[in-house]
Amino acid sequence: MMDLKDKTLAMVKDDLADIEAALLQNLNPYFELVSQVASHMISSGGKRLRPLLMVLSAKICGNHKKSDNFFSIIFEYLHAATLLHDDIVDEACLRRGKPAARSIWGNPIAVLVGDFLLARSLSIAAKTGRPRVIRVIAEITENMSQGEIHQLMRKKSLDLSEEEYLEIVRRKTAVLIQGACAVGAIISDATAQQEKALSKYGFNLGVAFQMVDDLLDYSSDTSVLGKEIGADLKEGKLTLPVIYALKTAKSKDRDLMKKTLLSKECSVPDFENFLILLQKYGGLTYTKKMAAEYVKNAKDALSVFKSSEVKDILLYLADCTLARRA
Amino acid sequence: MMDLKDKTLAMVKDDLADIEAALLQNLNPYFELVSQVASHMISSGGKRLRPLLMVLSAKICGNHKKSDNFFSIIFEYLHAATLLHDDIVDEACLRRGKPAARSIWGNPIAVLVGDFLLARSLSIAAKTGRPRVIRVIAEITENMSQGEIHQLMRKKSLDLSEEEYLEIVRRKTAVLIQGACAVGAIISDATAQQEKALSKYGFNLGVAFQMVDDLLDYSSDTSVLGKEIGADLKEGKLTLPVIYALKTAKSKDRDLMKKTLLSKECSVPDFENFLILLQKYGGLTYTKKMAAEYVKNAKDALSVFKSSEVKDILLYLADCTLARRA
Repeated sequence: MMDLKDKTLAMVKDDLADIEAALLQNLNPYFELVSQVASHMISSGGKRLRPLLMVLSAKICGNHKKSDNFFSIIFEYLHAATLLHDDIVDEACLRRGKPAARSIWGNPIAVLVGDFLLARSLSIAAKTGRPRVIRVIAEITENMSQGEIHQLMRKKSLDLSEEEYLEIVRRKTAVLIQGACAVGAIISDATAQQEKALSKYGFNLGVAFQMVDDLLDYSSDTSVLGKEIGADLKEGKLTLPVIYALKTAKSKDRDLMKKTLLSKECSVPDFENFLILLQKYGGLTYTKKMAAEYVKNAKDALSVFKSSEVKDILLYLADCTLARRA
Repeated sequence: MMDLKDKTLAMVKDDLADIEAALLQNLNPYFELVSQVASHMISSGGKRLRPLLMVLSAKICGNHKKSDNFFSIIFEYLHAATLLHDDIVDEACLRRGKPAARSIWGNPIAVLVGDFLLARSLSIAAKTGRPRVIRVIAEITENMSQGEIHQLMRKKSLDLSEEEYLEIVRRKTAVLIQGACAVGAIISDATAQQEKALSKYGFNLGVAFQMVDDLLDYSSDTSVLGKEIGADLKEGKLTLPVIYALKTAKSKDRDLMKKTLLSKECSVPDFENFLILLQKYGGLTYTKKMAAEYVKNAKDALSVFKSSEVKDILLYLADCTLARRA
């Protein structure tokens, strides 16, 4: 749970317990294997950030019903569905320190269980009886699939700009977190102002979250991160640290970085040299700075809400995004 | 269009034109490649059976608004999404006489464009503003993914029973056609009796449709079918013709069939010998008989509706299911 302080953890403990129970109780598969694969994803130690954000967003709007917590699992199922499919796209072998589902059961099962989880999240969204919630879920899914396609098409594209990177991040990561916060507001019959504020909070948090993810890919280690580090480099995925360093690097160093980005093999020394250049040209520092700005924007968006314990947690979660190590 | 008689074709011509136009106008991708891949699927000569059934179902209930025809594309997008994913699962190379999308663009793109089409169908379903429509769509997707998983897990399982085959067919094929008919009723504010009748019609038609599909895999040829024949045998997919023939075959012939079903290679003579045994033990005849029974059930379900041109078309489409050659 993102190094949450004990006090904060105590405050969200009941909500998290609700979420965990609901995640396991609502898979509803008729075929045993579906349950196994889905549980492998669901029980592999996700942070439950998205459902928690929905619950907290519902609470801060003041009209929260505990029974609505159930709907928050929409966002974990949807998240798990996209992870299953993304691991196929990226040919990933590890996920949260365990073998990826596709490594255990193969790509066909991973595709189909992903579809099932997507359908489950939709079924639960339908239970809200609110067409606006359905529209948000549909838009999230449209955006995420297109964000992933965009990213895939631009692999090894050394001219990827910061703007284009942000467009990809917006679609593939931010809209889901934004949607979780917005739906929390919608199911609590929040005012338009409250919904807009939470939507903005979620969006900015989501962008920061992805930037930190992209940083960790260069600065964490596999045992902490639960997946291989340097994966983005090996796949030729240009992320903000690289985009910035390429822009500021001297010609000779830039050519060296480009060579590593385009090469089919990336040895340990290649990776280490690349990392030195990222640091030398400020790619990591710049990304951290940008992530901090988005976190600040996220927190500022909450200014429309008066002080409360829930608001403190949301502010704290934003700070955690920057501090996280995995 | 399923060898529709000229008269019938003339009657549905305007509806089909509406459907074709809507299919192309509502993809709404922001990324050009998505449009290319989706159009490859959408424009590859599908029969538009599912959207047409929705439109006709809406019409027969008597309260049809032409503007509702738009919603019928939900079912073609959903169908295209599942085809994209099924071709990955089956490692298929051909689809409707053209290279499968995965053969042209690769599995990752096929996964993601499938997700996008699923999301589009959901977005359009949300536009109906009717939570019941969303629930039907969600149930369809849950069933289809699980039906495919069930089928995948039971490949090469020589003890697959007719009941289990029917369970797979129900989920992977029939619920979508059933859902198209049911949604037609729902959006026309049909009576419960009308909706139930159309749902029953669609379900039975869907089962018959799949049985004929399974027959054609043994009795058509590639140039007519647009995909390889004998694919089910090569993949070790047990379908009704095989299940029945295995049950009735003499021990020696049964062993020969089992050997072919389990072998990794299937030569042309292997396939021809297998086909002779299927015929000898009545597998093809039995399947045709069963499909005819489901078609009869489908037509009987329409008895609650009084005679009309639309009813004639629905009855005719049921008969076409049996007569189709591809």
